[in-house]
Amino acid sequence: MATAQSSVASRDVPVTAEIAKRATQLAWQDLPDDLIERTKQCLLDWFAVTVAGAQDDLTDILVQEAIEDGATGSATLVARSEKTLPSVAALINGAASHALDYDDVNFAMGGHPTVTVVPALLALGEQIKASGRLFIESFVAGYETSGRVGRLVAPSHYQKGFHVTGTVGTFSATAAAGRMLGLDDRQLATAFGIAATQASGLKSNFGTMCKPLHAGTASEQGLRAARLAAKGFTARPDSLECDQGFAASQSDHFAADAALGEPPSGWHLRNNLFKYHAACYLTHAPIECAKEIRLKSNFPPERVQKILLRIDSGADRVCNIPHPTSGLEAKFSLRQTVAMALTGVDTANLNSYTAAITEEPRIKKLRDKMAIEFQPNWAHSLAEMAIQLDDGSTLEASHDSGIPWPDLARQRQALEAKFDSLVTPVLGSAAAKRLRDTIDRVDRLADIGELVRASAM
Amino acid sequence: MATAQSSVASRDVPVTAEIAKRATQLAWQDLPDDLIERTKQCLLDWFAVTVAGAQDDLTDILVQEAIEDGATGSATLVARSEKTLPSVAALINGAASHALDYDDVNFAMGGHPTVTVVPALLALGEQIKASGRLFIESFVAGYETSGRVGRLVAPSHYQKGFHVTGTVGTFSATAAAGRMLGLDDRQLATAFGIAATQASGLKSNFGTMCKPLHAGTASEQGLRAARLAAKGFTARPDSLECDQGFAASQSDHFAADAALGEPPSGWHLRNNLFKYHAACYLTHAPIECAKEIRLKSNFPPERVQKILLRIDSGADRVCNIPHPTSGLEAKFSLRQTVAMALTGVDTANLNSYTAAITEEPRIKKLRDKMAIEFQPNWAHSLAEMAIQLDDGSTLEASHDSGIPWPDLARQRQALEAKFDSLVTPVLGSAAAKRLRDTIDRVDRLADIGELVRASAM
Repeated sequence: MATAQSSVASRDVPVTAEIAKRATQLAWQDLPDDLIERTKQCLLDWFAVTVAGAQDDLTDILVQEAIEDGATGSATLVARSEKTLPSVAALINGAASHALDYDDVNFAMGGHPTVTVVPALLALGEQIKASGRLFIESFVAGYETSGRVGRLVAPSHYQKGFHVTGTVGTFSATAAAGRMLGLDDRQLATAFGIAATQASGLKSNFGTMCKPLHAGTASEQGLRAARLAAKGFTARPDSLECDQGFAASQSDHFAADAALGEPPSGWHLRNNLFKYHAACYLTHAPIECAKEIRLKSNFPPERVQKILLRIDSGADRVCNIPHPTSGLEAKFSLRQTVAMALTGVDTANLNSYTAAITEEPRIKKLRDKMAIEFQPNWAHSLAEMAIQLDDGSTLEASHDSGIPWPDLARQRQALEAKFDSLVTPVLGSAAAKRLRDTIDRVDRLADIGELVRASAM
Repeated sequence: MATAQSSVASRDVPVTAEIAKRATQLAWQDLPDDLIERTKQCLLDWFAVTVAGAQDDLTDILVQEAIEDGATGSATLVARSEKTLPSVAALINGAASHALDYDDVNFAMGGHPTVTVVPALLALGEQIKASGRLFIESFVAGYETSGRVGRLVAPSHYQKGFHVTGTVGTFSATAAAGRMLGLDDRQLATAFGIAATQASGLKSNFGTMCKPLHAGTASEQGLRAARLAAKGFTARPDSLECDQGFAASQSDHFAADAALGEPPSGWHLRNNLFKYHAACYLTHAPIECAKEIRLKSNFPPERVQKILLRIDSGADRVCNIPHPTSGLEAKFSLRQTVAMALTGVDTANLNSYTAAITEEPRIKKLRDKMAIEFQPNWAHSLAEMAIQLDDGSTLEASHDSGIPWPDLARQRQALEAKFDSLVTPVLGSAAAKRLRDTIDRVDRLADIGELVRASAM
């Protein structure tokens, strides 16, 4: 560690100031049109998973705790009837949005980018009546910050045990809230110092309610950091690079070039990855292969003789339950999820994963016709599939779930389906449609509060 | 790091469960009488520094932020007129109590033990009307936890850049709040998992408002962790020792024996160290030497021919400003503070450190008669002094500010003087006396809320 610390301390690249400058200077006119559409798609996805996650036990407990603390106010909670303080809304909406682990991902950040940024912005924006345009500028500023800070400390930060969504996500929430508050470069650099000193989240808590909590605390602390800096609270303005700062204390890496170099596509937001299936991430590429083959050829499942799947061998330890018997096991079964996709079951719907569906004869037969060839050292997001039918013909497909979809319109369709599948059962179809419409015109909203209020119960 | 992680992961001592068990099982009848008195002395000291710290800019900003967030409630803030939520009171009172860096210290913890424990307990205790006895049991449970968790990860946790008061202090606040809520062993172990995943604080932020903020966030997060665990929130129950847990991710050490072995005195609380002078900690032993010599011999300062101070060479870089010109510089000047002590100036009083006093002829003359012999590798808390008078006689004293005072009654006198010096200027003498009296009968209070309300403005 002494080596890592001193090597970090010797770096004199002022990344904190530079990342702060890029966030504060980002303006509406710099945003290509597709970034507006991408922001809307992030919102579609975020509201979808948050409306569903707001019904989770975790959210109930956090709301109870807020009520017991007396934290009633005028900030809206998604898909709930209670109202609370802005800071607590950031916490609860943030945790709710990560409750299902069904929210979006960015590989540069190495975590979940939207769940820490949007809750802080909705809480603050509702309070100060920020415009939809200011919301979008602030969202992009926060999103890009997540990619920059993520790349600075990857991969050892995550490998040491830190949950990037909680830690790096605090910086992106800070950048977003700071941009919305109109902080200048120096103030945002100071806010990053407050963020650095509060950022937390341990990966060893995966599998418990603490994982989604990290998204909530990151959003809450990011909002706090920006607001305290705006009031003159002091902190180091070089917290990312300073001796014993964020990078030095929690990573062996200090990749300033990677952090400050922009991605080939120009924007981290262009590399955002959505989850379209409410199952383990490693089942997503096989599901997409199965869907593509089914939609192309539309054969009855009975005609399938054999299914061959090739996938990275890492999936063997993660989601290879051959004979699942519960809804949860179904989500971690390559055979089950592929069989569901081949029979046209909606794999985006949380309620599709039941004990009953693991017993369906058609599904069971398909499961047993599947062979898996695990491939060492493949990309974990890649799958290849070959399906042999009873006439001897073979249908093939391959998919990499780690590559953003090039067709934004198709991506929107998939997200709208996911949105309807998750939101309608909770809010009803009229309210779901109203919320979708409000998201569509977010860039024209005079008051972003209208958006979050459209999601309340 | 791979080495450190795997060596930690291989340890199978269930320290989290054991530390939780000791905290939940601590009961009134197990407490020796001196621990009740020691708790009262910690409260005397805590209220003294918090009443003063509540007037600091830092506290003003945090109160402004709470108001802007709408966090009004019925929880009392020390030496303020505003009322807030329990969670926010823990945050603000915690930060205020560490604002002056004048609060108590424990070497086993390696940080400031009381500032994270008392604020959480006052906030919770006021809300649930906890008895004074329950408060004391909970305080001791929290205090002992700070020593245990501190020793588990020392010294590399601090050396890596983490501020122990913020990180370890989150566990002690959790233990205290958990004990007050009556959590069982398993629930408190889970609460520790929530604490572990929220604990934060970077040493690189020393010298900014973030240092005191860490005490506040630790207190706030400890209270939250205990309350969430009481409601069934889930977290790992082995967060201290688990693979990529608190110790593995943030320390090269996992000293289970040290953590679970009790100190020779039987209680960490018996090793509590108070600060009696509002100056740099390394000036404390020289000041005590000067005070002892003056009180023993009571000579006029004009008779001093020469002052010789021996102290660890570390002090040379920290507090050896030979010709201070401001109040702040006075606090970091061995010569100035010793000269003040020799002329009977109240070194406990914050207001004694002014630009004017650095210009006083009597003080300046004494400063210039002082020689310092820096000693390599001495204990940093040790000083020896020899003062030669005009009749050729020499007066000598030595003091180690790292050793708890054996005489509890003398310690109480010193703390009462500190209390009066800090509290009376803010609350007035009648209210100061009322607060001191309430502290004196804390073990007989039916409702601990009476105590914290006695400190309000």
